[in-house]
Amino acid sequence: MNECMSILNTGLRGVNIASSKICDVRGKEGKLIYRGFLVQDLAKRAGFEEVCFLLLYERLPKKEELLDFGQSLKQKRAVPENIMTCLKALPKDMNPMDVLQMATPLLIQNDKAAGEPGIENTLYSAENLISGMATITAAWDRIRNSREVIPPNNDLNHAANFLYMLTGKIPDPETAQFFDISLVLHAEHSFNASTFTARQVASTRAHIYASVSAAIGSLSGALHGGANVRVMKMLKEIGSMDKIDAYISSVLDANDLIMGLGHAVYETDDPRALILGPMSKRMGEITGQPLWYELSRELEKKAKAAFMARKHREIYCNVDFYSASLFYTMGIPMDLFSPVFAISRISGWSAHVIEEQFAMAAPKPSLYRPGATYVGSYCGPDECVFVDLDKR
Amino acid sequence: MNECMSILNTGLRGVNIASSKICDVRGKEGKLIYRGFLVQDLAKRAGFEEVCFLLLYERLPKKEELLDFGQSLKQKRAVPENIMTCLKALPKDMNPMDVLQMATPLLIQNDKAAGEPGIENTLYSAENLISGMATITAAWDRIRNSREVIPPNNDLNHAANFLYMLTGKIPDPETAQFFDISLVLHAEHSFNASTFTARQVASTRAHIYASVSAAIGSLSGALHGGANVRVMKMLKEIGSMDKIDAYISSVLDANDLIMGLGHAVYETDDPRALILGPMSKRMGEITGQPLWYELSRELEKKAKAAFMARKHREIYCNVDFYSASLFYTMGIPMDLFSPVFAISRISGWSAHVIEEQFAMAAPKPSLYRPGATYVGSYCGPDECVFVDLDKR
Repeated sequence: MNECMSILNTGLRGVNIASSKICDVRGKEGKLIYRGFLVQDLAKRAGFEEVCFLLLYERLPKKEELLDFGQSLKQKRAVPENIMTCLKALPKDMNPMDVLQMATPLLIQNDKAAGEPGIENTLYSAENLISGMATITAAWDRIRNSREVIPPNNDLNHAANFLYMLTGKIPDPETAQFFDISLVLHAEHSFNASTFTARQVASTRAHIYASVSAAIGSLSGALHGGANVRVMKMLKEIGSMDKIDAYISSVLDANDLIMGLGHAVYETDDPRALILGPMSKRMGEITGQPLWYELSRELEKKAKAAFMARKHREIYCNVDFYSASLFYTMGIPMDLFSPVFAISRISGWSAHVIEEQFAMAAPKPSLYRPGATYVGSYCGPDECVFVDLDKR
Repeated sequence: MNECMSILNTGLRGVNIASSKICDVRGKEGKLIYRGFLVQDLAKRAGFEEVCFLLLYERLPKKEELLDFGQSLKQKRAVPENIMTCLKALPKDMNPMDVLQMATPLLIQNDKAAGEPGIENTLYSAENLISGMATITAAWDRIRNSREVIPPNNDLNHAANFLYMLTGKIPDPETAQFFDISLVLHAEHSFNASTFTARQVASTRAHIYASVSAAIGSLSGALHGGANVRVMKMLKEIGSMDKIDAYISSVLDANDLIMGLGHAVYETDDPRALILGPMSKRMGEITGQPLWYELSRELEKKAKAAFMARKHREIYCNVDFYSASLFYTMGIPMDLFSPVFAISRISGWSAHVIEEQFAMAAPKPSLYRPGATYVGSYCGPDECVFVDLDKR
């Protein structure tokens, strides 16, 4: 391993640091795989609860197991009242990601065995987080808008209940289904930055609440989360169909990027974008706001052609390109796009925390502890001579 | 770099992943260096505020700069009242590290330019965190003991003010100085797990509050923080001088470790332990509790001899060995040992966040994003065939 002693300042790009059974991203083929299953199969034929079970338990549930699991999640939807006391005390302009990072560790109150040894305790905590983070996210949006907090409705599944807690209205079945599918599509994506953060914190044997709160912090960074917010801002900036050509030209002239097009891993359309696009279209029809999908679709077509003509290369949609218009048309506030990502990705984060703390405990040394190469201080590579304050 | 594509499941041990100007640990020589300066010089001749300035601004301050800096820290000691509202709403048995991780993001309320571009904004945030985390830690200990929260006393320096906010009494000068030195000794230690977490979150361009909250989560893990708590528990378990021999024998027979002896990096006594030991001794004298230092000293002597006799190798004190008895004798509750570590290390974390976001922005690609090697699911390396719920 001597040849690998030093990989300075590369952000560990292209370096595989762990073996994992959770997720595979096959960029060339445009395949995203959770625990062996293609994401498009899961999106079409399984719901979010089923995918959570799959990620946590490493296999699809049988019918009764899924019922029990759903029931268990429902029992954890109501969060301790003091979380609401805290949220109500905060300034209403506080960023929802900051609020989610801050409030998530408080869910530990519901969980008497948190951090105790035993995978079953962490599985319990994961369920508590999956349910509780959705409740917190919805509650904060109500509180900051001086609206009453809506208690969970246990007649609804996870996705529909979130929309209900957010809006106070039971969503129509199609909207609920689209949101459910969106949660499935965002649930897991291998070692992205927030997942790596979750694993890294978990590797110190911190409990899952500490790990997940840290991951939320990581996701709040502009280079990680929030890309679909930037897509939506771009769509609003373009504003009408006749402005698309000029927009593409100005971006290409400046050698800039079009938000939502291009991905570090996929060399074809992101499989998630292929599912999100039609949902965005239909959502525009249902709500009478077809503009955002139509703008996106036309922008995609024209940008792909322009890239080929001027840069001689293909460019592809990523997951954020159509989730922007879908979420926006669904009525989700733009600054909740990242929290919505988080309330889906908590399922993947949990699977990774469990893999880090249990599956890999034997072969892997204690914790992630890379080194750094000291390159000297303002005195140079040598030690500085300390001069007392009076003589400086 | 092809030969470094895969470093699986090693926790990145022995791999230098970044260049840094902040800290050097010279294990063989027993030297710990902050920004070029030996930690023993800083401990003897500089105070915690001075070391914070050094870590943040990359040089020692002139007299007036230090005065201004100290003043600026004092102005940030009082935290928003709603933080107290939250803390008062929490169950009194909540772990202080969980509370600190949860409450730290709330300090952003005091900081209107948080996360805005510009190193000066992050330096301001770092000061806000250095001051605010100490206030939160002390306040939580008061609140959980149903005592009144003590507002900061701006006649006192950072260390003395913390002890004052914790106990309600102005500490005697010697105790205050010992605590100040302890803060200096814990301020920085290169790429340990929590610092790596802080940098990793910062690399996504999340703001420093998100990064530091994540680092607190990392420090809360048993493999990272809390070693001096385990030293103190060991000392209590031994309990009296005549039990030392039997304790050492039992540990060596079981091929186990003696807490606080041995370190992954230092091949001699940790330079910090050499300073903490005499302070622990004197603190025992001042408070009339000499036992804990005496036990430690005797344990050190006998364990070193026993290791040499039975294992034929040297064993050395690490930083936790004497900080345990020092903090305990000082009256710091054992479950505040890790928060006290955090209110010191916040200075180093801040320096690392700044280095990550500013100093290294140019050469380093956007964020830490390692890969993982997919090793297959329960279906094996191939894709699983999805079977509908009804047919499972």
